[in-house]
Amino acid sequence: METPWKDLVVAKRRECAQKIPREWTLSEDQLSVPARLLEYDLPRRTGLLSELELDLTENFTAKQLLVKLASGHVSSLAVTTAFCKRAAIAQQVTSCLTETFFDQALDRAKYLDEYLQREGKPIGPLHGLPVSLKDSFCVEGLQSTVGYVSFLKNPPASTNSALVAMLLRLGAVLYVKTNIPQTMMSADSENNIFGRTLNPHNTSLTAGGSSGGEGALVAFRGSILGVGTDIAGSIRIPSLCCGVYGFKPTADRVPFGGQVSGAMEGLPGLKPAAGPLAHSVADLQLFMKCVIGEGEAWQYDQTAMAVPWSGSPHSINERNGGLTIGVLGEDKAFPLHPPVKRALDRAVELLTRAGHRIVKLDNQSKKETSVAFSSRLSLQYFVYGPHIDHIGASGEPLVNSVAKAASPMFTGPWPVDQELETFQKIQKLHEARTRVSDAWRQIWVDQKLDVVLAPGAQNTAVAYDTYGWPPYTVMWNLLDYPACIVPFRKASKELDPEKMAIGDGVQPDYNPDEVDGAPCAVQVITPKFQDEKCLWAADIIDQVLRT
Amino acid sequence: METPWKDLVVAKRRECAQKIPREWTLSEDQLSVPARLLEYDLPRRTGLLSELELDLTENFTAKQLLVKLASGHVSSLAVTTAFCKRAAIAQQVTSCLTETFFDQALDRAKYLDEYLQREGKPIGPLHGLPVSLKDSFCVEGLQSTVGYVSFLKNPPASTNSALVAMLLRLGAVLYVKTNIPQTMMSADSENNIFGRTLNPHNTSLTAGGSSGGEGALVAFRGSILGVGTDIAGSIRIPSLCCGVYGFKPTADRVPFGGQVSGAMEGLPGLKPAAGPLAHSVADLQLFMKCVIGEGEAWQYDQTAMAVPWSGSPHSINERNGGLTIGVLGEDKAFPLHPPVKRALDRAVELLTRAGHRIVKLDNQSKKETSVAFSSRLSLQYFVYGPHIDHIGASGEPLVNSVAKAASPMFTGPWPVDQELETFQKIQKLHEARTRVSDAWRQIWVDQKLDVVLAPGAQNTAVAYDTYGWPPYTVMWNLLDYPACIVPFRKASKELDPEKMAIGDGVQPDYNPDEVDGAPCAVQVITPKFQDEKCLWAADIIDQVLRT
Repeated sequence: METPWKDLVVAKRRECAQKIPREWTLSEDQLSVPARLLEYDLPRRTGLLSELELDLTENFTAKQLLVKLASGHVSSLAVTTAFCKRAAIAQQVTSCLTETFFDQALDRAKYLDEYLQREGKPIGPLHGLPVSLKDSFCVEGLQSTVGYVSFLKNPPASTNSALVAMLLRLGAVLYVKTNIPQTMMSADSENNIFGRTLNPHNTSLTAGGSSGGEGALVAFRGSILGVGTDIAGSIRIPSLCCGVYGFKPTADRVPFGGQVSGAMEGLPGLKPAAGPLAHSVADLQLFMKCVIGEGEAWQYDQTAMAVPWSGSPHSINERNGGLTIGVLGEDKAFPLHPPVKRALDRAVELLTRAGHRIVKLDNQSKKETSVAFSSRLSLQYFVYGPHIDHIGASGEPLVNSVAKAASPMFTGPWPVDQELETFQKIQKLHEARTRVSDAWRQIWVDQKLDVVLAPGAQNTAVAYDTYGWPPYTVMWNLLDYPACIVPFRKASKELDPEKMAIGDGVQPDYNPDEVDGAPCAVQVITPKFQDEKCLWAADIIDQVLRT
Repeated sequence: METPWKDLVVAKRRECAQKIPREWTLSEDQLSVPARLLEYDLPRRTGLLSELELDLTENFTAKQLLVKLASGHVSSLAVTTAFCKRAAIAQQVTSCLTETFFDQALDRAKYLDEYLQREGKPIGPLHGLPVSLKDSFCVEGLQSTVGYVSFLKNPPASTNSALVAMLLRLGAVLYVKTNIPQTMMSADSENNIFGRTLNPHNTSLTAGGSSGGEGALVAFRGSILGVGTDIAGSIRIPSLCCGVYGFKPTADRVPFGGQVSGAMEGLPGLKPAAGPLAHSVADLQLFMKCVIGEGEAWQYDQTAMAVPWSGSPHSINERNGGLTIGVLGEDKAFPLHPPVKRALDRAVELLTRAGHRIVKLDNQSKKETSVAFSSRLSLQYFVYGPHIDHIGASGEPLVNSVAKAASPMFTGPWPVDQELETFQKIQKLHEARTRVSDAWRQIWVDQKLDVVLAPGAQNTAVAYDTYGWPPYTVMWNLLDYPACIVPFRKASKELDPEKMAIGDGVQPDYNPDEVDGAPCAVQVITPKFQDEKCLWAADIIDQVLRT
């Protein structure tokens, strides 16, 4: 007899709950929290964190913590304890975690503290820093169920993912893995094992997905530096939903190998990339610089590029002292919600005032450079081939967001005839993507762009299971262009009081009351492999927006 | 009525012949040359080249010529005239060219000379240097028939290939395109339009393929720097057959876009790379450095990586002052001809003596790292999908080498079941390649290798249509590893007097008399993206071998 899927889930949940130390478990009273969790300041109210621990988790960047750690001004045990506690609290009110391994983390922190004392130097550039990981990364001894009940039967990982091995080598402390959606292909991080991740800005809104647990945990400051993966927006959507910084690099720059996935990864399609979520552009850069370094990632992962993280990118127009910024505005097929539009307009205004050159891009007159076509082509790549049914394998039901997204994937015609014979279809998809890629190359060259500034989505975080499609993120996956989410302002029902209905049953309507206070963001994009420049420009832009 | 294919060919040949200036046409007497063409020194005997022209074409590297050109010590017109004459002679005795455009080349040379005089500086880093191109590259106004009679009906190119645009921008002078085999998938550069390219070392031997015209032209010193492409060995095979240096970079480092090809390039498979053939490692480096430069190639080609050519690679063991060299010896499935084995053994001996660390690699005990398995997997990638029949389209017959290669592609089992449904087959091929790639990564890391030293082929240049398979080159295409051919010694019937029969009807037998005097070579390989290190190490190795 097969164990019924619900029993497997009950057992897993019990195991997970038991791994949270009793003394970090919140009371019924403490668990009754308002929707605006960040404003409520739960960590302080619980009394679980000391003043030092609150300070360590709230008032420093990863970069600053690393300086303290490397010099011995603060111990890894102190920092790790602080983030473990805070992550445990986050988990109890947002369901942002899957696997927790606080004991091992604290042991490793002690080991690193001893190492520093004994050797008089840090073990590596990430010495003693807690880093959180999306559930898809394998950590020896832990499961990677990625939201499939059927994967609960898999044994714990016997080896580390390539990136995990690297992070440990670099000195990081790993302590939690974070929640994702069933299928990892939805902007609601809900599954039948670990439940739904809530947005700590407003728990009635989605935290985004698929790296939704990372988005929520980082926003809660239960992590100072998290790692997600992104094939259609899975780093950037949680980042923009949760108001944190997120970076999707060019594929294969960060080692991706050895993760668990339910996909047939050998078929031609969009390439996923691993990348950081953090509280500043500087910390995104820190992650990339540490992991890529002198280009040694290939030693860990056959897919990783042996290309160093290069020093100082330059503006094409640096003699004029400013960036040339192409602005990709609204595609009529995917109207922007008023707060998203407002944020983009305001960003353009501030950047203009700061002396940067703005080029408004025409994204409507040419099919290949339209958001709509790129998005449709991307989505066709996701559905043209077979899929392995990991859901049916256990008998678990679809979660709502997945059930809703299953059909149709989008409106409008298929870019390539779905009825073509397989080889022909693959060839035609390739040709269509080449045309899109070439059209964007041409825009960049003709307009002498440094970066493109664009919305990250039509909307902010929205109510559960209403997110819709990811056109403004997935188009850059199609091109394998690096893209960075920079949080900027918040939705305001005072400033944008009018409802906006799209009414196609998929794209979310704008509801001022519902999303009031939700974070807004802009997206900064560069061509393939120009990751250094993307973050360099994102930093310049961020500084303008924060003044 | 369709024009019969033979009439199309006659017309094309007439057009090509007329493009060679009358005064550079050799007499019947002059055309009666011995097989050992290089020793015969035809250019001097013709009297067509002045002493200066002989000197310019024979006694300098491209790097040295560029210094002379940039300083105005020699005019581009003089250099270009010299190489045009020499290429015209080479063509008449080896059929190494397809399109010639001497007039345009001389006009451009004059323009560049005037530019230098007017501006007081060169137009770019390749100012005034003649560069030859494989026929697959498009040059505005010229055809790219790539050996298919059916392509004779295509109009001349209306735009330049990305690399052609770049080379012009860098200051190069283009003057000829070079011969290839029908299908571009054979080691005999023969087709029904332009005939068979002969090896100038010994015209009874193949010049290799598919960039065979380049190999012959460069060996004849009718080109100082040529560009080929390589998906299974097409740069390296002509290089080793003709005794010149050749480099297959990691794919997408040199802009590949905008070439003519008969293949369905969107299907998963091996990725072709463009790269240089030259007379020294320094000139291979020169080409790579100029073309890749600061990583601006992406502006010309959406496939090209925006990754700069980086400065100084280091040996993993540089503290010991030497390279760690993994030696990949013979795979029993593909026995090495005695002169090839001798060259490799002698190279190892000299490198050991020079203080480098040699690690003999075990390539027989593990399937994934065997030459045989990699080679079979590579070849399965070439045949698993559909092909467009550009040969049947005109009614031309197959040339011998293509007819012979058509079936079977190799002996031994298919790595992946050919009967699988398409998507499954693609997935399984991908998984098999990943295992090979990961196994090689592991060898490199475990053995702390800087490079691998290997044969470039089982054999030297051999008699027409007997080359066989390309196992020792194609395995590095499967992995997308950069690989450099370094010429080293020659076959000698005195040293290796014994015949060696392989007798499977595909692999060539060793015939001491036939190949006596043919160039030998070694191959230097690094992991993906370590092109800089590959050439750096090849240079060190070359210096040892030349002493």
